[in-house]
Amino acid sequence: MTTGDTFDVVTFGETMIRHSVAPGERLETAHGTEMRAAGAESNVAVTVGRLGGETAWLSKLPDSPLARHVEASLRTHGVTPLVAPSEEGRVGVYYLEPAGAPRGTNVVYDRESAAVRTATPEELATEHVERAEAFYTSGITPALSTTLADTTRTLLDRAAAADTHTVFDLNYRAKLWSHEECRATCEPLFDAVDTLVVAERDARTVLSREGSAADIGAELAADHDCETVLVTRGAEGALAVHDGETVEQGAFDADTFDPIGTGDAFVGGYLARWLDGESVRDSMAYGAATAALKRTIGGDVATVTPDEVERVLDSDTSAIER
Amino acid sequence: MTTGDTFDVVTFGETMIRHSVAPGERLETAHGTEMRAAGAESNVAVTVGRLGGETAWLSKLPDSPLARHVEASLRTHGVTPLVAPSEEGRVGVYYLEPAGAPRGTNVVYDRESAAVRTATPEELATEHVERAEAFYTSGITPALSTTLADTTRTLLDRAAAADTHTVFDLNYRAKLWSHEECRATCEPLFDAVDTLVVAERDARTVLSREGSAADIGAELAADHDCETVLVTRGAEGALAVHDGETVEQGAFDADTFDPIGTGDAFVGGYLARWLDGESVRDSMAYGAATAALKRTIGGDVATVTPDEVERVLDSDTSAIER
Amino acid sequence: MTTGDTFDVVTFGETMIRHSVAPGERLETAHGTEMRAAGAESNVAVTVGRLGGETAWLSKLPDSPLARHVEASLRTHGVTPLVAPSEEGRVGVYYLEPAGAPRGTNVVYDRESAAVRTATPEELATEHVERAEAFYTSGITPALSTTLADTTRTLLDRAAAADTHTVFDLNYRAKLWSHEECRATCEPLFDAVDTLVVAERDARTVLSREGSAADIGAELAADHDCETVLVTRGAEGALAVHDGETVEQGAFDADTFDPIGTGDAFVGGYLARWLDGESVRDSMAYGAATAALKRTIGGDVATVTPDEVERVLDSDTSAIER
Amino acid sequence: MTTGDTFDVVTFGETMIRHSVAPGERLETAHGTEMRAAGAESNVAVTVGRLGGETAWLSKLPDSPLARHVEASLRTHGVTPLVAPSEEGRVGVYYLEPAGAPRGTNVVYDRESAAVRTATPEELATEHVERAEAFYTSGITPALSTTLADTTRTLLDRAAAADTHTVFDLNYRAKLWSHEECRATCEPLFDAVDTLVVAERDARTVLSREGSAADIGAELAADHDCETVLVTRGAEGALAVHDGETVEQGAFDADTFDPIGTGDAFVGGYLARWLDGESVRDSMAYGAATAALKRTIGGDVATVTPDEVERVLDSDTSAIER
Amino acid sequence: MTTGDTFDVVTFGETMIRHSVAPGERLETAHGTEMRAAGAESNVAVTVGRLGGETAWLSKLPDSPLARHVEASLRTHGVTPLVAPSEEGRVGVYYLEPAGAPRGTNVVYDRESAAVRTATPEELATEHVERAEAFYTSGITPALSTTLADTTRTLLDRAAAADTHTVFDLNYRAKLWSHEECRATCEPLFDAVDTLVVAERDARTVLSREGSAADIGAELAADHDCETVLVTRGAEGALAVHDGETVEQGAFDADTFDPIGTGDAFVGGYLARWLDGESVRDSMAYGAATAALKRTIGGDVATVTPDEVERVLDSDTSAIER
Amino acid sequence: MTTGDTFDVVTFGETMIRHSVAPGERLETAHGTEMRAAGAESNVAVTVGRLGGETAWLSKLPDSPLARHVEASLRTHGVTPLVAPSEEGRVGVYYLEPAGAPRGTNVVYDRESAAVRTATPEELATEHVERAEAFYTSGITPALSTTLADTTRTLLDRAAAADTHTVFDLNYRAKLWSHEECRATCEPLFDAVDTLVVAERDARTVLSREGSAADIGAELAADHDCETVLVTRGAEGALAVHDGETVEQGAFDADTFDPIGTGDAFVGGYLARWLDGESVRDSMAYGAATAALKRTIGGDVATVTPDEVERVLDSDTSAIER
Repeated sequence: MTTGDTFDVVTFGETMIRHSVAPGERLETAHGTEMRAAGAESNVAVTVGRLGGETAWLSKLPDSPLARHVEASLRTHGVTPLVAPSEEGRVGVYYLEPAGAPRGTNVVYDRESAAVRTATPEELATEHVERAEAFYTSGITPALSTTLADTTRTLLDRAAAADTHTVFDLNYRAKLWSHEECRATCEPLFDAVDTLVVAERDARTVLSREGSAADIGAELAADHDCETVLVTRGAEGALAVHDGETVEQGAFDADTFDPIGTGDAFVGGYLARWLDGESVRDSMAYGAATAALKRTIGGDVATVTPDEVERVLDSDTSAIER
Repeated sequence: MTTGDTFDVVTFGETMIRHSVAPGERLETAHGTEMRAAGAESNVAVTVGRLGGETAWLSKLPDSPLARHVEASLRTHGVTPLVAPSEEGRVGVYYLEPAGAPRGTNVVYDRESAAVRTATPEELATEHVERAEAFYTSGITPALSTTLADTTRTLLDRAAAADTHTVFDLNYRAKLWSHEECRATCEPLFDAVDTLVVAERDARTVLSREGSAADIGAELAADHDCETVLVTRGAEGALAVHDGETVEQGAFDADTFDPIGTGDAFVGGYLARWLDGESVRDSMAYGAATAALKRTIGGDVATVTPDEVERVLDSDTSAIER
Repeated sequence: MTTGDTFDVVTFGETMIRHSVAPGERLETAHGTEMRAAGAESNVAVTVGRLGGETAWLSKLPDSPLARHVEASLRTHGVTPLVAPSEEGRVGVYYLEPAGAPRGTNVVYDRESAAVRTATPEELATEHVERAEAFYTSGITPALSTTLADTTRTLLDRAAAADTHTVFDLNYRAKLWSHEECRATCEPLFDAVDTLVVAERDARTVLSREGSAADIGAELAADHDCETVLVTRGAEGALAVHDGETVEQGAFDADTFDPIGTGDAFVGGYLARWLDGESVRDSMAYGAATAALKRTIGGDVATVTPDEVERVLDSDTSAIER
Repeated sequence: MTTGDTFDVVTFGETMIRHSVAPGERLETAHGTEMRAAGAESNVAVTVGRLGGETAWLSKLPDSPLARHVEASLRTHGVTPLVAPSEEGRVGVYYLEPAGAPRGTNVVYDRESAAVRTATPEELATEHVERAEAFYTSGITPALSTTLADTTRTLLDRAAAADTHTVFDLNYRAKLWSHEECRATCEPLFDAVDTLVVAERDARTVLSREGSAADIGAELAADHDCETVLVTRGAEGALAVHDGETVEQGAFDADTFDPIGTGDAFVGGYLARWLDGESVRDSMAYGAATAALKRTIGGDVATVTPDEVERVLDSDTSAIER
Repeated sequence: MTTGDTFDVVTFGETMIRHSVAPGERLETAHGTEMRAAGAESNVAVTVGRLGGETAWLSKLPDSPLARHVEASLRTHGVTPLVAPSEEGRVGVYYLEPAGAPRGTNVVYDRESAAVRTATPEELATEHVERAEAFYTSGITPALSTTLADTTRTLLDRAAAADTHTVFDLNYRAKLWSHEECRATCEPLFDAVDTLVVAERDARTVLSREGSAADIGAELAADHDCETVLVTRGAEGALAVHDGETVEQGAFDADTFDPIGTGDAFVGGYLARWLDGESVRDSMAYGAATAALKRTIGGDVATVTPDEVERVLDSDTSAIER
Repeated sequence: MTTGDTFDVVTFGETMIRHSVAPGERLETAHGTEMRAAGAESNVAVTVGRLGGETAWLSKLPDSPLARHVEASLRTHGVTPLVAPSEEGRVGVYYLEPAGAPRGTNVVYDRESAAVRTATPEELATEHVERAEAFYTSGITPALSTTLADTTRTLLDRAAAADTHTVFDLNYRAKLWSHEECRATCEPLFDAVDTLVVAERDARTVLSREGSAADIGAELAADHDCETVLVTRGAEGALAVHDGETVEQGAFDADTFDPIGTGDAFVGGYLARWLDGESVRDSMAYGAATAALKRTIGGDVATVTPDEVERVLDSDTSAIER
């Protein structure tokens, strides 16, 4: 990558190797895995990239074939990896056992000692954050180490100072930290955030917010002076509080093949459109359509095209196309 | 094949190689495909063949391993390939990305320059058409080239002249031609057709017919002097207009694994029974049961046995048999 | 295995190699199979073993790699194979074609001449039955040969004489024998049975019982002086008659990946808990939770952990855990 | 198949399902198998069929998906199955563990109680044997049961009486019978054989012949008044004694992917050419080329084309063709 | 891609989808394929890119998932696709049946009507050719159509005019054209070529050159005023004629897993080093090491790292590294 | 496992999850892995266990599906896992890219922070070491942490004190430590070792020994008062110095499918026989035959039977057995 490049969106976070076993299999007795790269922040970069933006992903990786796997996977989707080299540490890994009720899909993290955990602003190509139109990271990143919590803070601040639009998704992960830890670390970050994304459930449990989803959105926007707050609500869709207005967006029906990454696809679709100058309302619809498509696709990332998103918005895609 | 053989049903058309990716995969990022032979006309030949008839498939293929793949696949199911050799042209191919809503299953044709597009009556073993009990082709064949449109016309005429029962399924494919082109080419063929098969949707959009499905069937039978018109209606089943009578047949409930080829399985099941001397009503039921079984089976063809069709007709097959 | 070991549960029966084709495939045209060990009695041993008991499986096998496959599979799950060597006979095999309606999953037995069919009490390590807390076998075993019917009788008697708790699941298999044959052979065995398990459907068709499920359970308990009768009712759950009391247990909702072995998982879960001294009511719930988990798992055996069963009982497992 | 058909070659024997595990895997711990149809006599029919002859395979099978698998596999290659239906018995199976030295490829038979073992001349369409140009069977068939030994005798006699050229390959299998049993049963059959095929090793161990391979061939031809004796010699090729003359044929170098079926490919290639009226010398070369090609192909059968055989004979096929 | 980028190497040609069957399988009976992107010119771009250069690939593709597959595959390896969109035409495809002697690996082209065949200089981003350090194409490109022959000529001329170093590999393909056609079209191009690559065999058969490999190289350099001529000699390595001097380079021993793309890996490795300012001698060694590594890797492209190439040059890599 | 059990051999060390990619694939671009359990010490336990001994494996694991995978894999082969539970730490993992020259098979360790690294004697069921006939560990274990170096020392001492025969394989791993570190830690352990195993190469590089292999063995035996020293020499076989005598053993020829674990198979085979009271000479031969078989088998462990080992010793296993 030529350092002179300018990106529409730069994201920052950990991308892992995802080892998933086949439906019906258990990790205990499985004989093999399917291997993909996955991480909330790179998922968002992929989605925006596939839907038209120039995107980059900022992180830190050791010199290993697994690290090259992560970088190659992102390049496949047109994302530029901006990676600080690490002498130490691993590539984080997660194992996935997909299952329906009552077992439920199980995510087993094996992300200890990941190289990214020691990433400091000095090591990272932060100039790209400052030059970008938007910067995205999520609450997973500060959960990984205190160094990363500090780095996240610094990057958000630098972005804000450089007038880069900052986007933050709370993305609470119970396997990484407690409600209290998450709140203590993340809520202070919100003040530097232009677009805040939070699941309604997390707003209630982690942030102790009450009232309707619209109330929560409005309250968060007011408390932290956010330009936009997106409250995601699972099967009920999402809601945006923007400029004092509330915009609601339902979820599109989807035959779910792989639900992981749905939220990232929503944010990515939203951002792709919004950065194109479309309204929050249109961007919400675009994000919801992208999220629905994602659910039909294996892996964490939304391997979609703008045409496909448009077709969902124009509806009626039930028949076989031939 | 000994040229002295006589077949119950001879079909004519293109059979392609079908490359399908696994559920949840995209062609863009897939690492492999599942490979099968597929084509409406050979699908019908397979179904009739598996349900008791002697069947042959008439076509034109180049000398290549893909062509041998097609022929071997048909022979597997007991269908005799009657293939004119071609010095030029390809074996048609189609790619399949199965998906649920809102993405929907996508069929990507790669069937340009197929050898069959230049097939003329002179090259084909048309004596088998004349000697057969029934001849089947579909609206896909004339859509492929003007040569094939002419050849289709000639074969239908020769079949009719030889008192071979002619069966034609409109089988409209939007990726091959427009409503208008299809109508202009196909409707004139109907006069040579004894049993006409048409989807209700296509009757409305392509043939501009209106009224109830029964009205449409009756109108088509009257306009073209068809002995029987079968109007297929997707999840609502099918309806036959025969001898001034209307016979309705519901669809059997099916857990769909692969919907492609359902219509061909219906026609094949219908023909197998009807050629055995059964009533239109019984043949419709047999066709519907075959179609429901097809939906549980991967690939375009109905790998079923007469026993299995009977068991569906006798109902209650929900439990595991052991 | 050191012969001095003592097991909580010893089971006796045939374990087969299960060759299953992929969903959507037919055995006629499949290119490969998935291979697992499977058998009602070893399934129960696996379930109890995984949920905390020390278990062994008693059987007879020839010296062959398929026999070693069966033994290795059981050891994987912590079950000790107590196998009489056989100079003759095969390892039984079954083929599985999974399918939804209207085709339905098809089990094709290839279990003729299995070595186990000649197993006599003299060959078997029956001392383990006598030393165990509980002994389990099912109606499949006596269905396989008259020798096995005699051996089953003897083992139940010896267990009863040694105060080992005897458990018998009628497990009627229409592909092995008729209603009449099953009843004539199995009903006399019930007198030696402490816990009798019977599907409501089989109670009606094989045993000609009438009335409500509770009536049937009570009648069977009374007729054969069984301590407990478990009447399994598919989607409606199960019911226990114990000490004159009736305990009902609903089935947990499950997204079914592979239904085979659900009944064995129920019995195994029930026994694991009951042997731990829990009440019939608690054991029924534990069995039902285990059975629901089993349905999400490929293969005949319930590859579950006690934690997972507890989590189902504590409910709400619908979300992805991460 | 129309009963009026006449075949160039009819073969008679057992065709099994072959379950093979991947290279490096053991049956004890394998998770799946590759499934194919395989049997010496159908292998020969396939080879002759692919190389230009009309061929049929005579056998007996139960009504099962595995039997349909066998029939479908043969039809794929253009062989007509002439199958007597059986109310009883199994489809024979064999398991294959491919391996190099010092483990060596292991074949595990699971062919007990196969339906074919009870096949009598009355059940079989022996008119096809009498009408064919050549009839082929091997020493595996009489090894399977005394009924089959009698039937083999009768079929060879009827063929001889009808002036059908009889071909018999001794094909000794140590896992089926002893040297003495094989000799006692098979040697008497040789008098009805026109072309006898025997491996040099088997001639020495089973038939106790001594001297050079040429001596053995000449002696066998003289003792049993055979028109031709083909002595196969593994890596050293083969030798024919015909009309008092000895013809030697070396083996073509081959990178072996799967050695099983090499001998059958040799005989099939030889017969295809010889039935075309070519000399024994030419037929030997054709057989050897076919055998070498077979070794590059997975499965028991020689999926080759006449062009490929010619190209081996014309040599230099080392480069990639593109 | 930002149009302002400058690349070290730009290549121009067709990249196809490669469908390969597993070792031992035949296309006629295969059930699936492995799918990869492949083409001489993009192979070279990938190799140079992986070994340190900034590379782009110039071509023309229709709007289809297969086209996106090609682009994604190149991006994976860091190559920038510079693709002219096409309203018509296909993505070329080739099928691969890998095999050892005597069958030999077979390449079956299905590349008729490829969109690239109509590519004109006007459609292509030729400014990147003019701005690049080197431009590479091969004799496959002009073989595909007269339009492409003209375009190749124009691009070579423009590159030469812009002082971009031009590299041309004769890459004769017998399945595309005759010796005479190839010579008539390609030899005139050599005058615009700075580095000419030709296989010794092709120099003899296509270009009718005689004498030693060194003589041939020297003669070609003199006739066409090439700065460097690389004569590749298969297992014997390669030889460069540069500045009147001859440099010989042996081939490194390699356990070949997939030989396809070896030549492209050699040229790519050579160019990567040579563009870094290394000597022809060092570049030849680097190319040979890269080619040897390629042979151990599946697919057409050399998925190698600079470290691995260095390690081959430093030799002794026989042991397992752990 | 009943704590009262007594084992023939107890081993101590780390067992990892091995993720291997298919031949020809690179980790960077692979789409999946094959997953197995692997570790020198458990490999030895498996081999001894399969060849007749009662074996156990001592280690420490966290509570995770990967840990259960390791335990299940060992149980499959009849090894009893004696596992200390850990609140912290990972299951070690290694990735394998198999390849021939010049790339060479690459092992990528991902074993940082493994739970076993904190294992102390207090946590481990050391009573089993004291009660066993033999105790085995290798130089990999003390390489993993200073805690483990201490624990290894303590276990060897306790074993020696309890008259358990101690076996130690130096097993130098360059990716874990330097020659100097290895020597400094391991050589002091040798005094507590009865049977010392060392590769000739490691003896020279790590232990700085010189002279012939026999000299090295004799010197090590003398320096550390070892009852037996086994010097392994790769393709040249192995050599034992025992009681002042030198016993040489050649390697059996093997078509290598997977070389990893060959050394462990040798030691396991040797121990199995030697513990049975056989001579060092016979045990060496048994070990060498086991090692040769291992090379034909995928994965780290020797899935062999005593019969197979005997057959190698009795030689001639080149032909297909059928």
